[in-house]
Amino acid sequence: MKANVIRLLVLGFVMMHVSAQVFSQDFNRFNWVSVGQDATLRLQGKLDDASLRASLYRLPASVKDVVRKEVWNLSRNPAGVYLDFYTEADTVAFAYRCEQNINLKHMSAIGISGIDVYAKLKDNRWVWVKTKYITLNNGDVKVVMEGLDVKDLAYYRLYFPLYNTVADFKIGLNRPVDLISLEHKGKPIVVYGTSIAQGASASRAGMSWVALLGRQVEMPVVNLGFSANGRLEKEVVDVIAKQEASLYIIDCLPNLVAFTDEEVRQRLLYTWQTLRKSHPQTPIIFTEHADATINLLNTDSQRAYERVNRNLNRFIAENITGKDAHVHLVTARSIGLDIDDTADGIHPSDRGMKKYTDAYDQVIRKLRIHIIN
Amino acid sequence: MKANVIRLLVLGFVMMHVSAQVFSQDFNRFNWVSVGQDATLRLQGKLDDASLRASLYRLPASVKDVVRKEVWNLSRNPAGVYLDFYTEADTVAFAYRCEQNINLKHMSAIGISGIDVYAKLKDNRWVWVKTKYITLNNGDVKVVMEGLDVKDLAYYRLYFPLYNTVADFKIGLNRPVDLISLEHKGKPIVVYGTSIAQGASASRAGMSWVALLGRQVEMPVVNLGFSANGRLEKEVVDVIAKQEASLYIIDCLPNLVAFTDEEVRQRLLYTWQTLRKSHPQTPIIFTEHADATINLLNTDSQRAYERVNRNLNRFIAENITGKDAHVHLVTARSIGLDIDDTADGIHPSDRGMKKYTDAYDQVIRKLRIHIIN
Repeated sequence: MKANVIRLLVLGFVMMHVSAQVFSQDFNRFNWVSVGQDATLRLQGKLDDASLRASLYRLPASVKDVVRKEVWNLSRNPAGVYLDFYTEADTVAFAYRCEQNINLKHMSAIGISGIDVYAKLKDNRWVWVKTKYITLNNGDVKVVMEGLDVKDLAYYRLYFPLYNTVADFKIGLNRPVDLISLEHKGKPIVVYGTSIAQGASASRAGMSWVALLGRQVEMPVVNLGFSANGRLEKEVVDVIAKQEASLYIIDCLPNLVAFTDEEVRQRLLYTWQTLRKSHPQTPIIFTEHADATINLLNTDSQRAYERVNRNLNRFIAENITGKDAHVHLVTARSIGLDIDDTADGIHPSDRGMKKYTDAYDQVIRKLRIHIIN
Repeated sequence: MKANVIRLLVLGFVMMHVSAQVFSQDFNRFNWVSVGQDATLRLQGKLDDASLRASLYRLPASVKDVVRKEVWNLSRNPAGVYLDFYTEADTVAFAYRCEQNINLKHMSAIGISGIDVYAKLKDNRWVWVKTKYITLNNGDVKVVMEGLDVKDLAYYRLYFPLYNTVADFKIGLNRPVDLISLEHKGKPIVVYGTSIAQGASASRAGMSWVALLGRQVEMPVVNLGFSANGRLEKEVVDVIAKQEASLYIIDCLPNLVAFTDEEVRQRLLYTWQTLRKSHPQTPIIFTEHADATINLLNTDSQRAYERVNRNLNRFIAENITGKDAHVHLVTARSIGLDIDDTADGIHPSDRGMKKYTDAYDQVIRKLRIHIIN
């Protein structure tokens, strides 16, 4: 961990859109730091690109007109982006603006637009920090965490929203600003995936499997889950190939069920060949569509899952087996989603998210990928 | 199981508020049965009261002006109400109207206003039925389940919404109506509780711990969880005392943190004495506030939980121990909620719901409460 102490002249910043509610006085009283405007705040869960250092977006500005518009728009949701920081304040507030009016029937407002905060203790345990939402509209959001006992605190980990685009993100302290931003160095795990990787239907940002995995294996993880538009596309694979990684996780199969067998094969092949060109030995995990293991009475969708998984296994047999020892398969069976692990038969609830995490964790521990700071 | 075959003259009922969307034709084509208007449909998860047999409400009409208005309004949410039925149709639709515009930041629309369907197979296993929401507005809801393979089906269990009041509930079949309603006989488990018992923050209606427990121990369960208004009140206890039960579960402590020690003691005492007057030997479970076991950095709320739990334990020591062998305690420790088991530090996600279920199941199995139909 490298500490970058922030020295800011913070002049009791007065918020623009303070509601006339009970908390307006309290919110005026805080001293605020602006995420995205202050380059000393080390946002994490990011690709190594200069344009992203202080940004809550997930793809570099250079690909704005390269990737499909839907992918670009989703890349503006800060899923998996996090900030590690330390402060001695006993009250910390967060204020931001949600730019989108998102309604997902399988996800709560906290899951879609909320933040989530964990605390790492000096004894290395993760505990959770209870927050209170003052407002959680589709517009302004105000959150506070109070009564903080920092004597055993190593640092906080703040997760940004999974499924909304946010602006004007500020962190407020009820004392002069003493915020220290911390940075986890080393090559990250890079995940390219679907809505499941982006975080649907986690109950909160820290419960997406990508966030869970980051805490569980203690490594930086980059979340490139793009909802229904995580389709194993050339343009995104090209971005990923530019990134040095400890591990690439390719988990797009649930979004490929609409494609022909040949199209699925082509996309898998391009991904593997492109990553191998720049990274001959970096481990790559390809993941099966996990919902195939759910017990259902109506099996139409299950047959679609099975077909796409057959495509993946054929690709592995024809191209990987005996040729590339650094490619690994995470099977639907090893994830083991059951009837009570999804919100809607597609998107894992927190129960399913934990199963995804454990399946990846198991492979990662076998690979002995580890970062020592 | 007693089967009540429904013989209805159903004349290809044309729905009133069919949207002009793609599915309007399909929805017109169904033959519909009206829940609540047809007395042969045996709604379950109900108190034994004539006014409730065909109703999606949870408290009898006779107490409308007896309980507080907030309790009455919440009793109109059909949390825990379910219908066991059989049909050979390969497509089943559901249509209903949500009367309330409910926004809970810690719960999804499917959790608040959605239905949920499980299937019991002939080999006694529960599997899940994947549904598709055509609309899930705060007004009309239309849901369909398709591609149903009934060869191993014993019956369906339909759970009604957890947190909204519904009207005009209809079940549609893509063939002449062959709906058979089934009824689980025997004295139910009666649960009096808070938002957690009502079902917050389950991802769907079948994942509330009350619904999970009913499937897991194969018994009828009556859900009298009244959100923030499940406060161990005299008026509700009086209703419960009229109900013959296999077991009473009293799980209101999270809503009693605002009361004085003496007030908590009085409410516990009234509950115990009232139930014992009519049911001297029926098992009663009193449940601790489970969130006390969550690891938090900010411990104010934790101290409130611990105080109310001390009150319960003092009540048990002073009144129960050595005097009433049929009262049992479910401790926070036996539930064992952890940081990743709640959506917001208060309401269990599906992970926490499973822990609640298992803690109750363990006591129930020790008590050897069992219903043979």
